[in-house]
Amino acid sequence: MERWEKQKRGSQIRWSRAVVGLVLIAALFMVLLMSCSDDEADTGEGAAPSAVSGDAAAIAEARGLTPDDITAALKTYTPSGVHDDYVLFGSGGHSGQVYVVGLPSMRILKKIAVFTPEPWQGWGYGAASSMEVLEEGFVNGNPLTWGDTHHPALSETAGDYDGEWLFINDKANARLAVIDLRDFETKQIVKNPIALNDHGGAFVTPDTEWVIEGGQYAAPLGWEYSSIDNYAEDYRGMVTIWKFDREAGRLVPEESFAMELPPYWQDLCDVGKLVSAGWLFCNSFNTEMATGGVESGNPPFETGASQRDMDYMHIINLDKAIEVAQAGNTFDVKGFPVISLDTAIEEGLLYFAPEPKSPHGVSIAPGGEYMVVSGKLDPHTTVYSFDKIQAAIAAGEWETDVYGVPILDFDDVVEAQVEVGLGPLHTQFDDKGYAYTSLFLEPAVARWSLGGPYADLNEEPDWSLVSKIPVHYNVGHISTAEGDTVSPDGKYLVSLNKWAIDRFLNVGPLLPQNFQLIDINEPGDNLQLLYDMPIPDGEPHYAQIIKADKLSPWEVYPEVGWDPHTQSPSPYATLIGEERIERDGNNVEIFMTAVRSHFTPEHVELQKGDHVTWHITNVEQTYDATHGFTIPLYNINLSIEPGETTTFEFDATEDGVFSYYCTEFCSALHLEMTGYMFIEP
Amino acid sequence: MERWEKQKRGSQIRWSRAVVGLVLIAALFMVLLMSCSDDEADTGEGAAPSAVSGDAAAIAEARGLTPDDITAALKTYTPSGVHDDYVLFGSGGHSGQVYVVGLPSMRILKKIAVFTPEPWQGWGYGAASSMEVLEEGFVNGNPLTWGDTHHPALSETAGDYDGEWLFINDKANARLAVIDLRDFETKQIVKNPIALNDHGGAFVTPDTEWVIEGGQYAAPLGWEYSSIDNYAEDYRGMVTIWKFDREAGRLVPEESFAMELPPYWQDLCDVGKLVSAGWLFCNSFNTEMATGGVESGNPPFETGASQRDMDYMHIINLDKAIEVAQAGNTFDVKGFPVISLDTAIEEGLLYFAPEPKSPHGVSIAPGGEYMVVSGKLDPHTTVYSFDKIQAAIAAGEWETDVYGVPILDFDDVVEAQVEVGLGPLHTQFDDKGYAYTSLFLEPAVARWSLGGPYADLNEEPDWSLVSKIPVHYNVGHISTAEGDTVSPDGKYLVSLNKWAIDRFLNVGPLLPQNFQLIDINEPGDNLQLLYDMPIPDGEPHYAQIIKADKLSPWEVYPEVGWDPHTQSPSPYATLIGEERIERDGNNVEIFMTAVRSHFTPEHVELQKGDHVTWHITNVEQTYDATHGFTIPLYNINLSIEPGETTTFEFDATEDGVFSYYCTEFCSALHLEMTGYMFIEP
Repeated sequence: MERWEKQKRGSQIRWSRAVVGLVLIAALFMVLLMSCSDDEADTGEGAAPSAVSGDAAAIAEARGLTPDDITAALKTYTPSGVHDDYVLFGSGGHSGQVYVVGLPSMRILKKIAVFTPEPWQGWGYGAASSMEVLEEGFVNGNPLTWGDTHHPALSETAGDYDGEWLFINDKANARLAVIDLRDFETKQIVKNPIALNDHGGAFVTPDTEWVIEGGQYAAPLGWEYSSIDNYAEDYRGMVTIWKFDREAGRLVPEESFAMELPPYWQDLCDVGKLVSAGWLFCNSFNTEMATGGVESGNPPFETGASQRDMDYMHIINLDKAIEVAQAGNTFDVKGFPVISLDTAIEEGLLYFAPEPKSPHGVSIAPGGEYMVVSGKLDPHTTVYSFDKIQAAIAAGEWETDVYGVPILDFDDVVEAQVEVGLGPLHTQFDDKGYAYTSLFLEPAVARWSLGGPYADLNEEPDWSLVSKIPVHYNVGHISTAEGDTVSPDGKYLVSLNKWAIDRFLNVGPLLPQNFQLIDINEPGDNLQLLYDMPIPDGEPHYAQIIKADKLSPWEVYPEVGWDPHTQSPSPYATLIGEERIERDGNNVEIFMTAVRSHFTPEHVELQKGDHVTWHITNVEQTYDATHGFTIPLYNINLSIEPGETTTFEFDATEDGVFSYYCTEFCSALHLEMTGYMFIEP
Repeated sequence: MERWEKQKRGSQIRWSRAVVGLVLIAALFMVLLMSCSDDEADTGEGAAPSAVSGDAAAIAEARGLTPDDITAALKTYTPSGVHDDYVLFGSGGHSGQVYVVGLPSMRILKKIAVFTPEPWQGWGYGAASSMEVLEEGFVNGNPLTWGDTHHPALSETAGDYDGEWLFINDKANARLAVIDLRDFETKQIVKNPIALNDHGGAFVTPDTEWVIEGGQYAAPLGWEYSSIDNYAEDYRGMVTIWKFDREAGRLVPEESFAMELPPYWQDLCDVGKLVSAGWLFCNSFNTEMATGGVESGNPPFETGASQRDMDYMHIINLDKAIEVAQAGNTFDVKGFPVISLDTAIEEGLLYFAPEPKSPHGVSIAPGGEYMVVSGKLDPHTTVYSFDKIQAAIAAGEWETDVYGVPILDFDDVVEAQVEVGLGPLHTQFDDKGYAYTSLFLEPAVARWSLGGPYADLNEEPDWSLVSKIPVHYNVGHISTAEGDTVSPDGKYLVSLNKWAIDRFLNVGPLLPQNFQLIDINEPGDNLQLLYDMPIPDGEPHYAQIIKADKLSPWEVYPEVGWDPHTQSPSPYATLIGEERIERDGNNVEIFMTAVRSHFTPEHVELQKGDHVTWHITNVEQTYDATHGFTIPLYNINLSIEPGETTTFEFDATEDGVFSYYCTEFCSALHLEMTGYMFIEP
């Protein structure tokens, strides 16, 4: 705790940082000046001697860098052309997208378009490979052109990230998306048939056979109208278990099912692993079944849903639930099979354990032995034992909730409670027997020690608070390197902060979020804040961090004429010399090629009223030789990566002269990569 | 040139960097170890002694940092909570947005939604303040929901950035947008009435009375159908001069006009300043009037438009053109006044100077004396003298092009040519009498010395190449701090590179772009590459860099109930206690408040078929206390910053139970900030 106090003081007393900086830097300047020119000479290399001698110290002094700043700079700076060690996949929150960030540099390497059209990537601006995916996610023909992405989940093999697939949910409309990490593009969006919002997803089973999507706000299943007066009878929670076909790279709705749950608001889930494999754990809040109505003198949800001391951790026998569903012991909601609450109780699929109220997230320890839950309004984090849970279930003695769900005795299933601080929220793990819990209200991240099989990995007493580090500000989730796997790496922790306030230059009333990179590599009381990274987009809820060498994306598509949606050769592939325009009545089909730096054909003649189907093949196989394509007024923009064949369609409703052109700067003569489309009235 | 060779070698021989690093870092380690613990003790501060002693050296060694890497790290690292010195406004290319980046940290502080809907900012997902702006940019009712942003222009006062407004064009549809830097939000989009694409914009006059939008690919004015066979007769170029009303914060189409130009493809422009104030300069290419048609055996545009040795710099007497337009000496295209080519010639508004072929950009020196042009296929940069241009015009002797436009004699108007290298593209200036030209083909940035009034600012001979620094890769535009003003700051240069290739981890076939930060603060042969910054979005064409302290955005809106579109109090402002739902037949109007952490009302009861108008006021005045708002299935998402009142409308077409909720994490009880909308069938 000493360091915690120090750091807190340090961040408050800015001038003292400056003093430390000046004194230390003066020293640094002197000693470097004495030593480094000789060393320079030894190297025989032409770099200016000043580069590491007096210059470095003078720079640090001029910029007011403290000793900690200097080490942080050296730990994060990633020189020109050098690659990062880890890749963070972060939800883009209400941007609807996914962010790809390199660690330790904290540079954004990519934004993956998922639920929201994004013209740079040609996502949702004409290209069939995107339009079909987005349209899968529409409901009753209502376009849904954004999402609220929350929890990205990397695919796993034997409980370890395998770098092949990424899943992400849309809380705002209860949808799941599948991203292929060969080309970092979204391949599928599925709409949950029985709910309009979700939260507890995505989470995968240890071999990614199933993907979990938990619900959030209760509603009648299938969201059919029913008065709020019927809340207890008609409103329900849910969790949906999606089958994933890894070969096809698609979720399979026909082999998926849901479980009806009481109308408590289910929150985050986590899937058991190793000893707890085959089980699923989900949080809940509002077990009060508050129905709001502040305008009528009722307590608002924020207080109505915070009355009881305990909510319920949902303990689900996933393997058995799958058997029950596969046996057809379900009922249908909008054609989708649902295991009823009664069946779940009868078959022993669902148990509750009391949990401190309004928790956000249940985190399974690497070996699967412990489930960690933090009630946001309780300063403790609570550790449940899987063995104890199994024993309590086997003992068969319990009370039930109003729906008849067994409630295990709190004291029977809890292994430990650790007082971590104010507003504990989410827990992650490392390779040294430590857990880390975010503290929304302090705000800080707490390091604490695990017991049991993790006890010997560090020197601290079991189940004890080790250290804290302040974060800025109001941290939600945290993510450690490989943190959700059976073998976390430790090394780095990223704090996903909700408020940035004064951390960055003022850019108007809407501020960026703030990711902070923390060095967790040293044991004990050594936690160092390395980097503030503004995230200029939707609120990033959660992230997973994978070792970079586990990813092996394609540099270019495997062959010229590739359809990225099917990940197979396109029937419309067009090679040089095969370009043509075919007319059949009012239907015109164009087969075009793109190469640095021209399109063929350069003239396209149409009649007003034509229906146009247009295929473009980027015949390049050079890394980074992407071409864009746009036609004014028709709201079309494509990104055609090397080898890709893309197709779009439109009706020629506006006549005139239109210049199509390449939107991705591709060569010195890129501006000349253009052509004319003529639409005769 | 010595350093240029060194740097080139350094980047090729990676192992030698490592050797230098190891040796120097060993020295750094030793000397720091000896000196720093004493200094630590002197400070009385609790920071660990190791933080600047052995640790720093060990870290650098472990990470393979070279001496140059270490200084670059210290020059760019911006400690937690410390603010950047400069702000770069970069076009987001075909993302349709604008990026806001802090220097020297190169962190993205914000993305400003402009032409493309963006749900994080609530831009285009229901909020009237965004829908109205986006709809202004639609054509004939055709939604245009993206743009190809190219050239941001900060507003100026007396030729200096004043930090008040930002303008950006959409090349893909010939539109201009106005962004208010009080809240970093887009306030207006205007569609060019006579053209479907643009390129030479935005550029502002020294007091921002006028904003320039130059054309790109020639077409009949108003884009009316005409066969390509009529190219010389019917197709035309253009430049449009938009009046800006600074008080209203709006471009004024009624006081704006265009000039008809020959069907050469006008490219970038720049506005004269100080001695050349009142004049406008634009590039062009394809003065060959090539019409393409590679599919018919014609040369493709890339070669057809590169036949002649010279294209034409357009020299426009802007002040006089404004007089002519205001006198009504125009013709109408789609109701928009256009000065005809004949009038322009008669009135002496338009002159040509030959320029090396296919240039990209004309850059005016800080004092306005020189116009710098680089033909991409010529290794020289060409410097024109404004005085010589004036003298040549006064002399009145010239040839004309086929349209009768006077062509000044090249030798009469050129001041100097400097051989800078392969593929020169764009030039910027600093405070030391240097110019910088990007070299697309090498790729590199060249520093060269100016003459005339700038000669005494540095030691190098006038008009001579001073140094080069390689960039990675294929640089398009460059931007120096305050580089387009009458008083550039120098210090930093950002190289906007088009290809990233191997600079970052592979993230699939679509790569980020690469911004590189270069230290240009030292004179002579000292240019240091400081930072590679991936830009994970549309191709960033151009950027302007402003001193951070010139910006003074609002932290929250000036009063509760603010309409950000009109920047005035909203008639729908709702305070606590004023919340209500009013029904008039099928029209329902809702007045809601949002505060941490509940909406009032929490129940909204509707009938299927209702038309709903919904106002939400965020009654907070706390910095960063933004609330989001979404309703499932209705594709609505709002960002309601502190004080904002926002309005959206929809028809209740889908019945059922819908949970609306806050999409921006606002408090520990954020998840409870929700309510139910019931739509009875």
